[in-house]
Amino acid sequence: MSGRTVLTVPELYGRIEAILRRAGLNAVQAGGLARVITAAERDACTSHGIYRIEGILRTIKAGKVRPDAVPELAPQRASAVLAVDAKGGFVNPAVELGVPALVDRARSTGIAALVINDAAHFSALWAEVEAVTEAGMAGLAMCPSYAAVAPAGGSAALLGTNPFAFGWPRDGREPYVFDFATSVAARGEIELRRQAGRPLPDGWAVDAAGRPTTDPEAALAGAMLPFGGHKGSALATMIELVAGIMVGDRTSVEALDAIGTTTLCPTHGELIVAFAPQVIAAGRPGNPFDRAETLFDAIVGQGARLPSQRRFSARARSESEGIGLSEAQVRQLDRFLEHGLDSVAGG
Amino acid sequence: MSGRTVLTVPELYGRIEAILRRAGLNAVQAGGLARVITAAERDACTSHGIYRIEGILRTIKAGKVRPDAVPELAPQRASAVLAVDAKGGFVNPAVELGVPALVDRARSTGIAALVINDAAHFSALWAEVEAVTEAGMAGLAMCPSYAAVAPAGGSAALLGTNPFAFGWPRDGREPYVFDFATSVAARGEIELRRQAGRPLPDGWAVDAAGRPTTDPEAALAGAMLPFGGHKGSALATMIELVAGIMVGDRTSVEALDAIGTTTLCPTHGELIVAFAPQVIAAGRPGNPFDRAETLFDAIVGQGARLPSQRRFSARARSESEGIGLSEAQVRQLDRFLEHGLDSVAGG
Repeated sequence: MSGRTVLTVPELYGRIEAILRRAGLNAVQAGGLARVITAAERDACTSHGIYRIEGILRTIKAGKVRPDAVPELAPQRASAVLAVDAKGGFVNPAVELGVPALVDRARSTGIAALVINDAAHFSALWAEVEAVTEAGMAGLAMCPSYAAVAPAGGSAALLGTNPFAFGWPRDGREPYVFDFATSVAARGEIELRRQAGRPLPDGWAVDAAGRPTTDPEAALAGAMLPFGGHKGSALATMIELVAGIMVGDRTSVEALDAIGTTTLCPTHGELIVAFAPQVIAAGRPGNPFDRAETLFDAIVGQGARLPSQRRFSARARSESEGIGLSEAQVRQLDRFLEHGLDSVAGG
Repeated sequence: MSGRTVLTVPELYGRIEAILRRAGLNAVQAGGLARVITAAERDACTSHGIYRIEGILRTIKAGKVRPDAVPELAPQRASAVLAVDAKGGFVNPAVELGVPALVDRARSTGIAALVINDAAHFSALWAEVEAVTEAGMAGLAMCPSYAAVAPAGGSAALLGTNPFAFGWPRDGREPYVFDFATSVAARGEIELRRQAGRPLPDGWAVDAAGRPTTDPEAALAGAMLPFGGHKGSALATMIELVAGIMVGDRTSVEALDAIGTTTLCPTHGELIVAFAPQVIAAGRPGNPFDRAETLFDAIVGQGARLPSQRRFSARARSESEGIGLSEAQVRQLDRFLEHGLDSVAGG
């Protein structure tokens, strides 16, 4: 551990927030982003942690996000559909504004939806569904991304890696949460295999001509494939429909067209649905939260793992022991803080 | 085609409805079932067509469904959550009662849910989501089934084959619809391979000791696996939570415990969600239905197929040319009509 710097969770938050303020984000943007980046690093979800800061700074520098945006609750679309206009800022402060209103509404409507529009995205959706479970409700979140995935049986990038996340609250412990890409693998995994000179498993990708390939280089020039064949492809298409088109926002193709590169954060919409189990199960036998524990016990009891368990273990460790950063990470953060947007390429 | 009998769609419906009435179902049960069985046979979805009648008759004979049930709209659980009590009858008449109320509610709430309780199940969920799309809305349907699937990383049957279905309406043409089991394969496919003496692909099943197996016999004594590894397993678990526990009805384990065999129809609940795209997209640029056509064109344009296309082709063919039944099928239907419940084993 020599050369490692250990920060408490609030210390890491403070450092990230200062970097984002220095880069020109207003308080609401910097706070929302710093909270979700800190949470990811705390959970050892490093693909969405401080690793993302560089891309955020480049997106700001390129003028592809509004650094001074203040999200607003938009007029509700219907009695069970609320909307937040992210005003071209990042999605995270829009989620922080909208989810409390969403769960409040779902308490009376039983099910309610939150639409977020015009938001730049870089983070994982587990943060969204955990915000819903913290209010004692079940939550579902979906969004498109950049066109990078061919539909099953197809030959070219059309769908995004379109994440699907779900959470169920558990009394006094971490919620049941999953959050997965509907692509078979993340683009980063293909990049890692390219660097290591390792072939891809069958079924991960097609090349630029639409032919199946196990060559990472050819895959990066072509398109990824959905997980689970036609089933994952169907889910990814559903997400384009309900979390892109139905919310009145961009599809993954339109998100890529608008930004012109996959190396900056895309701007699009998001759909979050909250369910109030205690309302929906009212009058029926059994307490839904107790019954869910029986199901979770049965899963764990046969040796299977609940999703997010590794993340929650890391969370507990980070909260008691702090978060360790390498020398390179500390230097990078120092550079970001000192030089702001000058520390990154592009613009 | 010698020996084949061709019936029009209404003729087949009449024959099935008469069989179900003869077996003791009241008019609302027989009508609801005959409509969905006829629709499946019309769509060449033979696994849910007249092939299912024998199991239905055996379920009636075993006293595991109420043949005289009349489903009722139950008190609404919340302003956006309606409920139908199937009263221990089949799910199909409950769907026919509930979906018109659901879409009517979603017109004002934007999103609404329909809970169905205490219903015997044998049919595919595409019928449910097509009923929603016929009203110009997008629909989602889920239900548990019998415990037959081990969670990813687990060793024993706990989850059902838990179907997930989604539909999006298309103006003047068949909707975009998918409906898939969250297990990697249907139990029937494993049975077919057993009969043919063919091994299973890797990843389909575990044996009774929880070890991976490619032996169909061992798989039938063990458990199936979810599609797509931990992702499909997560979806199947979500369905237990929201379409079993949250609706105040049985999980797949409880459904199996209650009936004691997988050879009769299980009784459990179901969750249907309707979204009104024209309401949810209101005030945003573009018409959501037109934009969806652009997405569908792009999928088809790159050589991929939309889900359900084979089914819709068969539907068009059946409606113009009728539905062909083999001599064996005609004899079986005649036997069901003549002997009623005496034509099947058990009871």
